[in-house]
Amino acid sequence: MSRWRPDARERLERAALELFTEAGFAETTVPQITARAGLTTRTFFRYFADKREVLFAAEQELPDLVASLMAQAPPGLDVLGVTAWGLDRVATTRFVGLHEHLRARRAVIRGDNSLQERELQKLSVLTGAIEAGFLDRGLDGLSAALAARIATAVFDVSLDRWLDQDGEQPLAQLLHESFERLHPLIGDPTAGTGAQPCQAAAVSVAKSR
Amino acid sequence: MSRWRPDARERLERAALELFTEAGFAETTVPQITARAGLTTRTFFRYFADKREVLFAAEQELPDLVASLMAQAPPGLDVLGVTAWGLDRVATTRFVGLHEHLRARRAVIRGDNSLQERELQKLSVLTGAIEAGFLDRGLDGLSAALAARIATAVFDVSLDRWLDQDGEQPLAQLLHESFERLHPLIGDPTAGTGAQPCQAAAVSVAKSR
Repeated sequence: MSRWRPDARERLERAALELFTEAGFAETTVPQITARAGLTTRTFFRYFADKREVLFAAEQELPDLVASLMAQAPPGLDVLGVTAWGLDRVATTRFVGLHEHLRARRAVIRGDNSLQERELQKLSVLTGAIEAGFLDRGLDGLSAALAARIATAVFDVSLDRWLDQDGEQPLAQLLHESFERLHPLIGDPTAGTGAQPCQAAAVSVAKSR
Repeated sequence: MSRWRPDARERLERAALELFTEAGFAETTVPQITARAGLTTRTFFRYFADKREVLFAAEQELPDLVASLMAQAPPGLDVLGVTAWGLDRVATTRFVGLHEHLRARRAVIRGDNSLQERELQKLSVLTGAIEAGFLDRGLDGLSAALAARIATAVFDVSLDRWLDQDGEQPLAQLLHESFERLHPLIGDPTAGTGAQPCQAAAVSVAKSR
């Protein structure tokens, strides 16, 4: 098989998404997917347990991908720095060129309750992988659990905003905006008035001179 | 029916959880649940669509409960303050006396993949309700989306820690610990070194004089 030709798994994923979009998820059968992809049903079941799993193929790679990224993150970064670094890497490598594909996938998932539940399960796998990565970096259990959920939240909210628009803004920029928004929300015990403690500190230093 | 007698819905919930725990979720049938509760199958289906939904009965009340709590929260509270106030209210009213019940429920859910997906769906309903509450309080969309996910994360992580132990620490205390942990994680753009931006601001003010 020449290098530029999509492999069997990718062909099945594309064929399935096309059919789910055209005919509906519930109405599409595995034989229809394999016919569209020009492959056999036997090949389909070598890659996927059922038609639902075609939409979640990337999940299998998530734990390794996250572990690898978090191990590569510069050692000096703090929790939020590691999160931002890792998500930026994902946005600028893995998600490039996938805007239309992911938008079509999201539309299919939103149309079916069981797919929505399955998507939440995928986010939960992502959270678990990030949590394990933070534990590996020496974070305590409670901090790792919270940090991982915040990372997934930033990713999920940013991805949704990216897919809401026509692709004008890159995903990395929307991720950056979400991270920026965290500070005033949780910045200090009087969150929502993020700048005040700094102003207070500045005034106190100025007065003491 | 006298006041102290559990109503039909509660009797069905207790009977179902007992049977799921004793015999397994997959192995338990609706007629077994109704027999244990001393009620008819017809009564069962008046309250629940299927045996799975017995474990998620509280979900129906979530949107109204969250909306009511968030509307009651003192107007001066910031985002994190509203979240802490609401979760503390829930912990000190709705969850009192439910430690053993919720621990048994969690064990059943952990034993079944489809129940785990359903539980994630319930958390997603909770997140949606909190997000709506923040929008009602005037927060912008991005902030409301992030704040709601952080609230659910704090709740989920704290509830899990509560059920991990034998009930020595009240849920409200574990919630408080989680909120405390958020600040060093997200406190400022160089999180983990919370004081630095203020020091920088102070120095810059001092120099400009």
